[in-house]
Amino acid sequence: MIYYSRDDIDNLDKIFRLNMINSCTGFKSANLLATKSTNGNTNVAVFSSITHLGSNPPLIGFILRPTTVPRDTYKNIKDTGVFTVNHITKNQVEDAHHTSAKYSSDISEFDKTELEEEYLDNFHAPYVKNCNVKLGCKFLEEYYIKENDTLMLVSEIMHIYIIDNKIQEKDGWLNLQTAKSVTINGLDGYLSAKLINRFPYARPKKS
Amino acid sequence: MIYYSRDDIDNLDKIFRLNMINSCTGFKSANLLATKSTNGNTNVAVFSSITHLGSNPPLIGFILRPTTVPRDTYKNIKDTGVFTVNHITKNQVEDAHHTSAKYSSDISEFDKTELEEEYLDNFHAPYVKNCNVKLGCKFLEEYYIKENDTLMLVSEIMHIYIIDNKIQEKDGWLNLQTAKSVTINGLDGYLSAKLINRFPYARPKKS
Repeated sequence: MIYYSRDDIDNLDKIFRLNMINSCTGFKSANLLATKSTNGNTNVAVFSSITHLGSNPPLIGFILRPTTVPRDTYKNIKDTGVFTVNHITKNQVEDAHHTSAKYSSDISEFDKTELEEEYLDNFHAPYVKNCNVKLGCKFLEEYYIKENDTLMLVSEIMHIYIIDNKIQEKDGWLNLQTAKSVTINGLDGYLSAKLINRFPYARPKKS
Repeated sequence: MIYYSRDDIDNLDKIFRLNMINSCTGFKSANLLATKSTNGNTNVAVFSSITHLGSNPPLIGFILRPTTVPRDTYKNIKDTGVFTVNHITKNQVEDAHHTSAKYSSDISEFDKTELEEEYLDNFHAPYVKNCNVKLGCKFLEEYYIKENDTLMLVSEIMHIYIIDNKIQEKDGWLNLQTAKSVTINGLDGYLSAKLINRFPYARPKKS
């Protein structure tokens, strides 16, 4: 067994700590968040912090560190009010990871990778072609997390596109294995997933 | 392709919407959050919203709906200031899911499942035996999310236990596949994951 106390963690080499703390909460969602600035520059960046907040209304949250990258994403969301969330699929992981490189804001990651913009139903922000689940989202509110100077952005889902009908089951559930969506482990590990089981709604045992 | 507008989403059957919206943001972390009340009653519940917030200091966040279940978890955290986060492993998924059943607060889910309490280094909250990655956490702050009447709890990692030395690689990264940690799809799907690749730190392409 390996044990780290809080003092141990604070005294670790920075990269070692980044790798460990980023992987110790478990698997993360793997999405491409795409925006377009008011003057038409597009931006796409990998995000592993997008989380379900509630179903009614349909809300999502994610964490931004506005004092570092990706500033373009934040500025575009604040300026235009909209962005898209696109599930990274198995054959996109290398390009998806490359969007974390620090390009200047006039350079689109769409031009530096094989990822392609796609516009649907006149939404201002681009979707990412070949992602099998795509959400068009509207920014609602930001919460400043004073403990580490980050922001949690709360946004509303306005559009859902499910590319292949086989992904959605009769009860509404999206089978993310069928969608070939990947999951992120830490900062840089991309994994495919395989269903163990789905369980019925849990009710207390009598005995 | 299947498309849902915001109006479509709002007009869906409740269970259908729950299943779709809970799965449309991608894979989620799969953890057992364990607490102990001031009078010694333990509680363990599955959580899929635990997310990395930052590495230095090591912070995590998760979402609670305090007006519904799991109230015990929230009360115990507020009363005692501590809780544990335990990665659900492949052979625990059925018991882990059962912790979502609504038991009264005097009944411990540890008594209703094969999950076992484990106490380490005099920490007040129990860890879950046979989970391969366990965190001892201290509550710091809560943020009220007015858009859907939920709370985001921000907490600090105080202790990390990695049960098998093979899980941690030389650069600090925890290999969650080696840990047999699972990921959650929607409300009730549990999946194992398989590494596609890890990528080096992304740097801009010259051309």
